[in-house]
Amino acid sequence: MSSTKDIDTLIELMAKLPGLGPRSARRAVLHLIRKRALLLAPLADSMQTVAATARECLNCGNVGTSDICDICESEKRANGILCVVEDVSDLWAMERANVFKGRYHVLGGTLSALDAIGPEELRIPRLIDRVTSEHITEVILALNATIDGQTTAHYIADLLENRVTLTSLAQGVPIGGELDYLDDGTITAAMNARKPI
Amino acid sequence: MSSTKDIDTLIELMAKLPGLGPRSARRAVLHLIRKRALLLAPLADSMQTVAATARECLNCGNVGTSDICDICESEKRANGILCVVEDVSDLWAMERANVFKGRYHVLGGTLSALDAIGPEELRIPRLIDRVTSEHITEVILALNATIDGQTTAHYIADLLENRVTLTSLAQGVPIGGELDYLDDGTITAAMNARKPI
Repeated sequence: MSSTKDIDTLIELMAKLPGLGPRSARRAVLHLIRKRALLLAPLADSMQTVAATARECLNCGNVGTSDICDICESEKRANGILCVVEDVSDLWAMERANVFKGRYHVLGGTLSALDAIGPEELRIPRLIDRVTSEHITEVILALNATIDGQTTAHYIADLLENRVTLTSLAQGVPIGGELDYLDDGTITAAMNARKPI
Repeated sequence: MSSTKDIDTLIELMAKLPGLGPRSARRAVLHLIRKRALLLAPLADSMQTVAATARECLNCGNVGTSDICDICESEKRANGILCVVEDVSDLWAMERANVFKGRYHVLGGTLSALDAIGPEELRIPRLIDRVTSEHITEVILALNATIDGQTTAHYIADLLENRVTLTSLAQGVPIGGELDYLDDGTITAAMNARKPI
């Protein structure tokens, strides 16, 4: 491709990133080489640091730089309430919204008979342990509104029934959403959950 | 965003790559953290190497890992013929096609009155020097078929007229192209340059 092996290796590795293919990887690498002092060197350093320190929190499954993540260790977080999410990206989305002050539990996926993913693969046993050890009184099941997500939510709800208060995120019209572009399921859910003004 | 500063820094840097925004940068970083042994560590090493060694060829403007690039130094390349391209990515595209056996000259952009880019900004003086010092007999102007590209080609053609044979890439229907999807200009060019079968 290019004239040197080192640059070709970098292009090949970059092309493995989600959202990048061979063409966009070449473009990104050229951009990096042009800005090697401003961008490439800091990016390489940052990657070295993260590669050396990043790990999954042993308690909740969040990624961080210590065995127990900052959220699990924080004393400012509300005790007794857990928000269960599928993935770290969902946890990050909740944190950006800055609306939840309790702690999280990242399942690491959803139950899936097709992919042979059962409760043991999903950090579900750890969730049950935490409910007891951390004296949890409310579990918010913030799983995605997909078939697999809802199946997983039902499974967990069955396990924790009568032990904690179980809640789920409200479903309805998204803020800024136009009815014309919404699917029938969302409109039905929003209509059924309508509220007095 | 995430719970740790190191990971946030990496996300911010990744978001500066062309083709990635904040959302896709977060996705890429999560992917990297999950595959930190297989992908993140090798990628960090590869970036360190390239950051330390990558530079522009002093002769032709190609990027490589030495002051004079492999193509300029290669003795297998034909002497006396230069292919002038706008950008390193164009050079890489020509090399992938594996059709040109001479050497290159990368301008680093096109002339642009609007952006105040004149010949001095473009490695054009170096091109004139090379034509003399390397005893060039043919210069292929493989600039992009845009207004700026063609303006630059005309400017260089004026400078080198009567000193070398000047050629440009043929214009016509791309291989695999369908007439119905081609612009009028391309069809006109292809028609005017029609060949006996």
